[in-house]
Amino acid sequence: MKRDATATRQRILDHATAEFARYGIAGARVDRIAAAAGSNKAMLYAYFGSKDGLFDAVFDAVVVRNVADVPIDASDLAEYAARLADQYERYPEVLRLMAWDRLERGGEGARLPAVVAASAHKVEEVRKAQAAGLIGDHFPPAMLLELIYAIATIRFDAITPANGAPPPDLRRRAIKEAVTRLIRA
Amino acid sequence: MKRDATATRQRILDHATAEFARYGIAGARVDRIAAAAGSNKAMLYAYFGSKDGLFDAVFDAVVVRNVADVPIDASDLAEYAARLADQYERYPEVLRLMAWDRLERGGEGARLPAVVAASAHKVEEVRKAQAAGLIGDHFPPAMLLELIYAIATIRFDAITPANGAPPPDLRRRAIKEAVTRLIRA
Repeated sequence: MKRDATATRQRILDHATAEFARYGIAGARVDRIAAAAGSNKAMLYAYFGSKDGLFDAVFDAVVVRNVADVPIDASDLAEYAARLADQYERYPEVLRLMAWDRLERGGEGARLPAVVAASAHKVEEVRKAQAAGLIGDHFPPAMLLELIYAIATIRFDAITPANGAPPPDLRRRAIKEAVTRLIRA
Repeated sequence: MKRDATATRQRILDHATAEFARYGIAGARVDRIAAAAGSNKAMLYAYFGSKDGLFDAVFDAVVVRNVADVPIDASDLAEYAARLADQYERYPEVLRLMAWDRLERGGEGARLPAVVAASAHKVEEVRKAQAAGLIGDHFPPAMLLELIYAIATIRFDAITPANGAPPPDLRRRAIKEAVTRLIRA
């Protein structure tokens, strides 16, 4: 029974991730998610409380996976940024979920406990690297991290869309070069 | 008559800008836009063809204003980036329109003639500045521009949302420092 419940909860989460990434929060249909997961709306609400609670759970799970797959390495932030870009390439739904969260909820996802904890850890790692003189300290740690995230999420296909996105290795090289320049003492 | 028609068209555009910025493309209500503009759906469709055509017109107008207000200055890209950030501060709906366009139409807005022309001009200005040795040429021009846009659009309130966004002068300084580092030969 317990195992079935866990499996159902996970199936709902998986389908909710796809639905929210595609349609956003207002556009997502809870009944479509429940049906795709072989469940029903009553069960979904019992697990997640509301559509917003379900989005929180999706967002939380994505951040936890990101932190596990791409732990911060403040001794090599350029490579960290490139690995983040690889991760976004692998899971394109993550950037979409983050963008919907900003547009539709004013970035409420950044206030979830798991996200706050992950951010605090990263800020502290950058602060220590600056204090140790491993990287420059001209940017406050949180601002440097925001610069790194902004750079790691560029797909480089907006200015010349007719050319499509550049090959991953060129993108990776540009990201590493940019971050190297930002952290130089 | 002609003057009335122009005024009506402009009123529809203004209300459509606010409606699309707030609700996105799928979420925007054409009848709400028409009513707010003191017009009706038939008139709106006569002017803009479709909801998508109306979004194109909004996007186009925003880009034209951006290019007029903040022309590129390849001899001082750091200040250009800071002025872009000022502009986004002044017209926050622009970043929202661009984000909806990416999420809901795969960035179709970047293919509009006015946007393609504006982008081509900027790429050429950066290319010339690189050729003249005013800035480094380690990034291809279009990639450097994407880096600059990504940096100019950071609000620096995502990592530590509890602190809110930093004051504009601190944000401006960080943006200029980052771009200065990217363009250094």
